[in-house]
Amino acid sequence: MNRNTTGQSTAGVAPTAHSGTPAPERHKGVTGPKGFKAAGVAAGIKESGALDLALVVNEGPGQAAAGVFTTNQVKAAPVLWSQQVLQERKLHAVVLNSGGANACTGPEGFQDTHATAEKVAEVLDVGAIEVAVCSTGLIGERLPMDNLKAGVKKAAQELAAGDQADLNAATAVMTTDTHPKQCWQDHPDGWSVGGFVKGAGMLSPNMATMLSVITTDAVIDGDALDAALRAVTAKTYDRLDVDGGTSTNDTVLVLASGASGVTPSPDDFADVLTAVAKDLVKQLQGDAEGVTKEVSITVNGALTEAEAVVVAKTVAEDNLVKTALFGSDPNWGRIAMAVGRSQATVDQHKLGITINGVTLFADGHKAADRSEADLSGRDVEIVVDLNLGDGTATVLTTDLSHGYVEENSAYSS
Amino acid sequence: MNRNTTGQSTAGVAPTAHSGTPAPERHKGVTGPKGFKAAGVAAGIKESGALDLALVVNEGPGQAAAGVFTTNQVKAAPVLWSQQVLQERKLHAVVLNSGGANACTGPEGFQDTHATAEKVAEVLDVGAIEVAVCSTGLIGERLPMDNLKAGVKKAAQELAAGDQADLNAATAVMTTDTHPKQCWQDHPDGWSVGGFVKGAGMLSPNMATMLSVITTDAVIDGDALDAALRAVTAKTYDRLDVDGGTSTNDTVLVLASGASGVTPSPDDFADVLTAVAKDLVKQLQGDAEGVTKEVSITVNGALTEAEAVVVAKTVAEDNLVKTALFGSDPNWGRIAMAVGRSQATVDQHKLGITINGVTLFADGHKAADRSEADLSGRDVEIVVDLNLGDGTATVLTTDLSHGYVEENSAYSS
Repeated sequence: MNRNTTGQSTAGVAPTAHSGTPAPERHKGVTGPKGFKAAGVAAGIKESGALDLALVVNEGPGQAAAGVFTTNQVKAAPVLWSQQVLQERKLHAVVLNSGGANACTGPEGFQDTHATAEKVAEVLDVGAIEVAVCSTGLIGERLPMDNLKAGVKKAAQELAAGDQADLNAATAVMTTDTHPKQCWQDHPDGWSVGGFVKGAGMLSPNMATMLSVITTDAVIDGDALDAALRAVTAKTYDRLDVDGGTSTNDTVLVLASGASGVTPSPDDFADVLTAVAKDLVKQLQGDAEGVTKEVSITVNGALTEAEAVVVAKTVAEDNLVKTALFGSDPNWGRIAMAVGRSQATVDQHKLGITINGVTLFADGHKAADRSEADLSGRDVEIVVDLNLGDGTATVLTTDLSHGYVEENSAYSS
Repeated sequence: MNRNTTGQSTAGVAPTAHSGTPAPERHKGVTGPKGFKAAGVAAGIKESGALDLALVVNEGPGQAAAGVFTTNQVKAAPVLWSQQVLQERKLHAVVLNSGGANACTGPEGFQDTHATAEKVAEVLDVGAIEVAVCSTGLIGERLPMDNLKAGVKKAAQELAAGDQADLNAATAVMTTDTHPKQCWQDHPDGWSVGGFVKGAGMLSPNMATMLSVITTDAVIDGDALDAALRAVTAKTYDRLDVDGGTSTNDTVLVLASGASGVTPSPDDFADVLTAVAKDLVKQLQGDAEGVTKEVSITVNGALTEAEAVVVAKTVAEDNLVKTALFGSDPNWGRIAMAVGRSQATVDQHKLGITINGVTLFADGHKAADRSEADLSGRDVEIVVDLNLGDGTATVLTTDLSHGYVEENSAYSS
C-alpha cells in the first residue's frame, strides 16, 4: 500500500536526502491520486530564471477542499484570499508562486492576489472563488504581475498528470529548499493521497506550515476533509519547530477529487493522510536551513498534552540547546534550563533527561556522565520525563549551525 | 555626581568595550560605597587557575539587603539558599563562585551551598543566615568543596576596599565574559551606589539577570531597598534579552551599609540605582557571546506596556531577525513576521517599522526601499509602531553571529 513510481516503500521511512544532497528525481506527488493535473514553470518572478510558478488542478468529479493557515497576525495577501475562498470548502485549482511572499503589501497586494486568481479562473474557465493562491519568498515586495499572469497561462498549457508534472510543481515552490519534497501513498481499497511541501526556514508551523498541497481521489465531503486536515496537521506540521518563526504565509491545502469512486472510512482516511503529512514533515526537517542534526524531543509525564508541547517547543527553540547539538555535546544542563523556563508546570526534583537512550539526569540528580551519550550521528533523540502526569508529545527540530547563520544573514540579497 | 576613579563620567555613557576588547583596568565597583570590602581569588574551582571566587562583605553599620532571582522553575541550589536568607532582608556577606553553577545537583548540592555559607560565617564570625551564595558555570556538576572552602579562607584574608579588590571580585565571577563589568555612581549628598555584573550567554533575565551584586552606603531599610530593587530590575535587567535563555542561577543582590550616614529620598535613590543598573546592563549587552551588533528594540503604541515588552522580546529572540542583523540587512519583513507571531495584539494595517531612523514600513505599506537604512555600524535602533494604544517599552538585544554558534557549540568542553 505504499509505493512510489519505482515501487519502493516511502511513507514511514526516514528519507535519506540531506541538506545539499539531491533528492530522488522521480517521486510521485500531487497527481498520484486520480483526477489531478499539475505544472511548474519559470514565470520570471525569480531573477534566477528558475521554476517559480506551480498550478495544481482538480478535474473532479468532486471539488471538496479544506485549508489551514498561519496563526501569525501579520498574514500575507494570498492567505487572506485563500481563507475566504475556502469557506465554501471547494477548490478547482491552487496557484502557487515562489520569488515573493506578497506579505506586508497592503490592499494593492491583495488586489494582486485577486488578479492572480482571476487569471487562473479565466484560463481554466472556472470561478475565481474556486482558486486558492499561495506565495512564498521575501516579505514586503510587490509581485511582477505581468510575468505572473503570463506564467499562469503557460502553466495551464503544460498541465499534465505524472512524475514530471509533480516534480515541476514541487520544484517551482522552492525558496531556500535544496530539493523538492513530495510524498504519495495508496490504500488497498483503490484510493490514494499525495502531496508536496516547501519550507526550510521561518519554520514553526502553528495550525499550518509553510506551503503544502495535498491531494486525494477518495470520495469525501468538504466538512469531513476539513475535520481530518485539522486533526492531522495539529499532530504533524504543528509538531515541527526549526526556528520558532511562524511565517506570514503558512498554508496547507487538501483537495479531494473523488475520482477513485471509493469512500474510505474516516479512520482509514486519517491514517493515510497522517502518513503522508508525517513523511512530508520529516522531509522538511531534513532539508531545514543549515541542518546537521535531525532532532526529536519527546516530553513524557506532563500534566497535559498541551503542556508537553509547550515544554518540547521551548527546548526546540532554545539556542543554547541547539548550538550544543551542533557541537555534538550532550549538555543536558541546557535542556534542564529550557524545560524550567517553559510556561508549563515543572518540578526539578522529579525531572529526568535521556539523550540517545542514555539517561543523564534522573529525579533531579546527575545519573551518568555526559560523555556516555553519543551525539556524533545525524539523528538525536531527546526524552524529557516530567513525572507529573500523562501528557506526552514529540516535536521535531534541528540544530543551530554556522550554515543557518550564513544562509540567513545573506538571504534577502 | 558621576565619576570613576580616573574622574571620568561613566553612568549614562555607552561603554566602549567590545567583545574581546579589554575593559579599562581600573574602575570603581562594589567597594566604591563606604562600608564594603571585597576580594577575588583563585580557589582552584576552574581548572584554568583563573580567579574563581569572590567575597563581598558589608561592614555596616547597617546590613539591609534585598535580592531578585530567576523565574526559572529549575533553580540552582545557591538561588534556593539565597532566597531563604533574604527573607530577613539582612546580609553580612555574599560569596560567589564561577566554575560551576551548582544547579541540578539535588539535596547534596544544597548541602554544598549551605556548607559554603557556614564557612564564610566561620571566617567572618557572623551567622550563616546572613550570607548569600551565588554560583555560575556548567549545570549539573558538584563543586570541589575542599578547594572552595580553602578559597573562602583565602578571600577573607585578602578583603580590602579599593580598585584592585573591586577588579578582582568582578573578575572572579566571569565565565565566557571577556572582561569584568563594573559601575559606580555617587550622589552630591555624599552617598553612592556601586556594583558588578557577570553574564554573556543564557541571558534573558526575568526578575533578575545572571549574577550581579550592587552596594550602597545610603541609609535605607530592607523593605525600601527591596521595593527599589524590584522596580529598577523590572525596567533594566529584565529588558535585556540576548538569547531567551533565562538561567537557573540569575541573581541580583543589593546591600546597604548606611556608612554615609545619609538617607536619600526614595526618588533620588531610585534614580542612582537605575543609572547603575542601566550601565551594568549596557555592559552585559556589549559583552554578550558573539555580539557584533548592539540592538535596541523600542515598541510604541501597544495596548499596554506589558504587551510592548512581549512584542519587543519576540523580535529580540527571533533568529531570523538576529541573523539578518548580523548580515547588516534591514530585512524589516522578518521583524513584521516576529511582531505578528507575538502573543500581543497587532493590526498589520496599522503597523510601522523604522530602522536607524529610516521608516521602511508604515500603515501596512512599504515606505522606503530597505537599502536606505544603513546597518553597517555596531549600534542598531529598531522602532516598531503598533498604533493601538499608549504602551511602550525598549528591550536590548544582540545579533546572532558565527561567534555565538562557535562559542556555544564548544562551551562545556
